[in-house]
Amino acid sequence: MIEAGQLVLVISPTGKRYTHALDPAKEIHTHDGRILMSDIAEAGFGGIVRSHLGHPYRILKPTVYELIKGVKRQTQIMYPKEIGYLLLKLGVTPGSRIIECGTGSGGLTLALATYVGDTGKVYTYERREEFYKNAAKNLARVGLSHRVEQHLCDIEETGFQQTGADALFLDVRVPQDCLHHIQPAVRPGAMCGFLLPTCNQVSDLLRGLEQGPFTELEALEILVRRYKTVPDRLRPEDRMVAHTGFLVFARCMEKPEPFVRPAKVQPLEEPSPEGQPGENVPALGPEVAPETDADPLPDVDDETEATE
Amino acid sequence: MIEAGQLVLVISPTGKRYTHALDPAKEIHTHDGRILMSDIAEAGFGGIVRSHLGHPYRILKPTVYELIKGVKRQTQIMYPKEIGYLLLKLGVTPGSRIIECGTGSGGLTLALATYVGDTGKVYTYERREEFYKNAAKNLARVGLSHRVEQHLCDIEETGFQQTGADALFLDVRVPQDCLHHIQPAVRPGAMCGFLLPTCNQVSDLLRGLEQGPFTELEALEILVRRYKTVPDRLRPEDRMVAHTGFLVFARCMEKPEPFVRPAKVQPLEEPSPEGQPGENVPALGPEVAPETDADPLPDVDDETEATE
Amino acid sequence: MIEAGQLVLVISPTGKRYTHALDPAKEIHTHDGRILMSDIAEAGFGGIVRSHLGHPYRILKPTVYELIKGVKRQTQIMYPKEIGYLLLKLGVTPGSRIIECGTGSGGLTLALATYVGDTGKVYTYERREEFYKNAAKNLARVGLSHRVEQHLCDIEETGFQQTGADALFLDVRVPQDCLHHIQPAVRPGAMCGFLLPTCNQVSDLLRGLEQGPFTELEALEILVRRYKTVPDRLRPEDRMVAHTGFLVFARCMEKPEPFVRPAKVQPLEEPSPEGQPGENVPALGPEVAPETDADPLPDVDDETEATE
Amino acid sequence: MIEAGQLVLVISPTGKRYTHALDPAKEIHTHDGRILMSDIAEAGFGGIVRSHLGHPYRILKPTVYELIKGVKRQTQIMYPKEIGYLLLKLGVTPGSRIIECGTGSGGLTLALATYVGDTGKVYTYERREEFYKNAAKNLARVGLSHRVEQHLCDIEETGFQQTGADALFLDVRVPQDCLHHIQPAVRPGAMCGFLLPTCNQVSDLLRGLEQGPFTELEALEILVRRYKTVPDRLRPEDRMVAHTGFLVFARCMEKPEPFVRPAKVQPLEEPSPEGQPGENVPALGPEVAPETDADPLPDVDDETEATE
Repeated sequence: MIEAGQLVLVISPTGKRYTHALDPAKEIHTHDGRILMSDIAEAGFGGIVRSHLGHPYRILKPTVYELIKGVKRQTQIMYPKEIGYLLLKLGVTPGSRIIECGTGSGGLTLALATYVGDTGKVYTYERREEFYKNAAKNLARVGLSHRVEQHLCDIEETGFQQTGADALFLDVRVPQDCLHHIQPAVRPGAMCGFLLPTCNQVSDLLRGLEQGPFTELEALEILVRRYKTVPDRLRPEDRMVAHTGFLVFARCMEKPEPFVRPAKVQPLEEPSPEGQPGENVPALGPEVAPETDADPLPDVDDETEATE
Repeated sequence: MIEAGQLVLVISPTGKRYTHALDPAKEIHTHDGRILMSDIAEAGFGGIVRSHLGHPYRILKPTVYELIKGVKRQTQIMYPKEIGYLLLKLGVTPGSRIIECGTGSGGLTLALATYVGDTGKVYTYERREEFYKNAAKNLARVGLSHRVEQHLCDIEETGFQQTGADALFLDVRVPQDCLHHIQPAVRPGAMCGFLLPTCNQVSDLLRGLEQGPFTELEALEILVRRYKTVPDRLRPEDRMVAHTGFLVFARCMEKPEPFVRPAKVQPLEEPSPEGQPGENVPALGPEVAPETDADPLPDVDDETEATE
Repeated sequence: MIEAGQLVLVISPTGKRYTHALDPAKEIHTHDGRILMSDIAEAGFGGIVRSHLGHPYRILKPTVYELIKGVKRQTQIMYPKEIGYLLLKLGVTPGSRIIECGTGSGGLTLALATYVGDTGKVYTYERREEFYKNAAKNLARVGLSHRVEQHLCDIEETGFQQTGADALFLDVRVPQDCLHHIQPAVRPGAMCGFLLPTCNQVSDLLRGLEQGPFTELEALEILVRRYKTVPDRLRPEDRMVAHTGFLVFARCMEKPEPFVRPAKVQPLEEPSPEGQPGENVPALGPEVAPETDADPLPDVDDETEATE
Repeated sequence: MIEAGQLVLVISPTGKRYTHALDPAKEIHTHDGRILMSDIAEAGFGGIVRSHLGHPYRILKPTVYELIKGVKRQTQIMYPKEIGYLLLKLGVTPGSRIIECGTGSGGLTLALATYVGDTGKVYTYERREEFYKNAAKNLARVGLSHRVEQHLCDIEETGFQQTGADALFLDVRVPQDCLHHIQPAVRPGAMCGFLLPTCNQVSDLLRGLEQGPFTELEALEILVRRYKTVPDRLRPEDRMVAHTGFLVFARCMEKPEPFVRPAKVQPLEEPSPEGQPGENVPALGPEVAPETDADPLPDVDDETEATE
């Protein structure tokens, strides 16, 4: 049995896909007839139901990927290829507290809410009321509203209401005008991500990030190329998405405070130059490039057991 | 204070990065001197400690991305660009039960264990003892062993011990020889993923998947291109990783059983052709291509509020 | 004045482009009216003519790029991104004698004919009569017929009629079935190129090439990504061509004959081990990889005068 | 027999490649011994010669591709993937007159000189004397000096000395400062190309081109990905060149002069609004985008004869 409120994926004989929240009292109307939701509840995930015209429909549990793609769109959405990378890069894990702006259609919000789990929280900011409302609907449809705190305001003016967040993501037009709001809102060392459509905006943002207190600046783009799945004629598809946006990452540091070793610990070889109160530990510099693919692990072919 | 057992990221003045599990009784030895772990615990995430030679080290909380990259490698690792996509595509969420084979170095295992949360579980299979042991160490280092059930065996012979898993991932040399073990191990409609290095292997796998009971076959590759983060001279880096592996996805269906509508529901327009017991509902066909980027959302420039 | 027979590019006010061979006695009919070709001849390249309705049309000289794109298509065409690379890789230069099969729509034939100049020749083979005729028309339209010798036959059966050609290009479905015809037709060391749409075909071809007498095997693909040319909003276009075909290259060697140094030349330091008549000089091996981008020249920024 | 002065490619047993101009009186010194150039002349292209130590060397005719890669470098070179595309895009054909700046190492100059043939000419400008001299040597080595007119000056100050050139290419740091020199130097409608390393420079150039008299602006990048040529394990190489430079193209128009139809031609349907002397025919606009891959030819699989 599928519980009421759960999201189901209904696939028609021709491969058309419908996502619905299960309400056993209702029906789904399709080109091939009407389907009783109570039938769906009984068939369960993986099962088959028939419309009243007898056409078979497959019932499946939607993956996060499908939920993201299925949000009702009013704005440019974020693609799974960026969202998946973000989860890892920002360290979005069960229990995390994540700040996001703007909410947009809520596709990323949905993914963040999924992965912070019931012990985490997503604080999402949006200044346009229609998108704020649309995102609320999308979150309700997937039953994740309780993990999300929505804010309707312009963060450029208001800043963020949270402190000590674990990570932050900005998908706004002029992010460098909001950078000064970040440090008070996140814990020291929090990873911050940004999505921008143009090279010009990336340059402007980098200029702002260099003012600090940000470090480990990175900029990159992700491309996915699909293949035709014909075993004897394997080849890439004719066309692909060439650009969705540039991702920029930076770690937000606080004003560095030197940590002074307690006097009782004596260095073994040399006297320790104690940090003086008020001393500024030199920053790591605006651009520390920890990320490099310069030396990928040598390819290990499957037929050889390689050790390193 | 940082708790004992937590993983910390220590960054040297020159940007070298060290990942350690915190043991307040121990020291870290670096090129720039010795660091007391008790100092680290006290400095906290974001803080600075000094080696006994006075050099400042930054203490940070490692993200999942950094943990994945930091596993002690004995085999070719999976890259974050694939792992992030997998999490969404396979639907790995808190509470999920995920099967994985082979464990390899445990990089993917670590990510899966992170995201299934305490209510989920990762069942990971590896046939080579040295990798099995190495992965165990990697998981212990990050404190995720309790979410993972490791198996040391060759699944081609033994199959999987689980049933009703939510998703499955195979990174093995000849996956098509294991396909028959999948359906008994996963719930109907579970998403399955595969990683293969060569086109030949992708073709062979697709041939096997077409035998069923798999549907929605997809094959793709993911590329990441980095940019030099100089605001006035923004450009891509000179070189990039050109290939890590091809990802293949397929949904595992059970032998379809028709769902017969109870007699009391009368169709409004036409008599319903009841499904006969034992009737085979025609399969959706080996290759249903739900994924297409043929019509991406039109670009919405930031300065226009676009609605659709 | 533009000479009769020359190809002209006519651009409408809305940017529509028409390619015509100039015949001063004729007219061009467009959506915006009729244009006298005599007017075009008088306006010259770069000039403007008006249709009888008064709409202005720009007259330009078409580049090779535009001629290639403008061929009347009956088959999949070759893209300029491959053709340009081929010219350099195969060494197609004024005076060259180049063999090509299949002619297809004649797009590549047109480019080859352009670049072998009046002292060179293109020998092109096609087995399907409709394409043979269509290509003849395309070549006549651009006034290059005299540089091309067309053949209507199946080279798998007939082989090539030429000997000592400078280079050869095959765009056929099963090239490995034709490989034995290559060596008699080209000069020793001639570069050969192949275009194939699928990975499977590339593997099959490589298997055949490894049988020899081919060396320096290479396989690659070329991608072009366009950008929106808005200065303040520079970014890649949303979509791009993801695949046209894989290019394979190999050098065709003859059975190596040792060259024996005349007895009168004495080595200065050591006695020379003379090559024995009939001795087989060991082949260079099937796969010599001269091509590597492993060490591209370090980037030289414009503001520094770098010397190496 | 190979003629004196011709360029030969000598390949060692280990695959090392040497390019030399043939001088029958001289020797080549290699790691495996000395080779008499007279032996090379006699062996001919495709033949084998032995060093005085008896090691076999293969003699081949270098392709343009190999000549480009073989120039003695003092600056960042242009890659064949760009050069091939340029030849087609700019319409560099036998008989063309092409302007180029800066000469740099002469790699592109070499390619242009090859393809303009004996009836064409390359006019190349360089302001740095060391590069000017080095390029002269490179051109002499390949016997193409007679097709090239070198200039040692700063075109930003001097402009170009030619008029009515067929096409122009600029590889300079601040091309927008030279744009006003282009129109006097080229024929109306001439295609112009530019190479720039950074996004910022592309934006700046586009801003300048929009001032006119340029039209049909395009910006793009070209990527080549190589494959390991192992038939049973076909896959892309691990790494690739991610960026060499952005290509920008624009057509240089003159101030448009209306062409007035002679009075004797009467329009059939409507009176023609004659162009008034001095009338400005509206420009086509700064950005006409003739180039679009939005609708590539449908893929034609080899086993089906497709007609359109």
